[in-house]
Amino acid sequence: MARVVVEVMPKPEILDPQGKAISSGLTRLGFDGFTDVRQGKRFELTVEGEVTDAVLTEVRDAAEKLLSNPVIENVVAVRAEEDPGTEAGAR
Amino acid sequence: MARVVVEVMPKPEILDPQGKAISSGLTRLGFDGFTDVRQGKRFELTVEGEVTDAVLTEVRDAAEKLLSNPVIENVVAVRAEEDPGTEAGAR
Repeated sequence: MARVVVEVMPKPEILDPQGKAISSGLTRLGFDGFTDVRQGKRFELTVEGEVTDAVLTEVRDAAEKLLSNPVIENVVAVRAEEDPGTEAGAR
Repeated sequence: MARVVVEVMPKPEILDPQGKAISSGLTRLGFDGFTDVRQGKRFELTVEGEVTDAVLTEVRDAAEKLLSNPVIENVVAVRAEEDPGTEAGAR
């Protein structure tokens, strides 16, 4: 089973209160040197069969229509992922 | 200003009702061929100066302590990003 990963972030000009809260949290926990944090979304779509260009085009379309709100968010990445998403911290 | 991207996904054995809702939505909108959708989070941390190994180690630590809930989520990626996250759909 192949996977396609879609990444969505709030547009730069949109306020991100969750990101601000995380930024304060980092400072409070003693993590210094970070000037800004933004929080977005990551989707993993499992595809029947292979990830062809047609599938990626379909996913890009779905990303604009369903996975993101184009008024406030950008789709920053749509890519095939060979290795299931468990490279670190997996059990 | 360099950025570090952290990606967090629900563990495979954890139910993901948001992902299920998106999966139904895709079918309803006529996007076929997707067997499963999972929704996770993507964080962009802006770093003062360069992204060194020490910074990445600090971010990995922060990812486990603040950005994810290790009981239900895996940190699937921590990586430096040269190009600010605007490759598609950016304005």
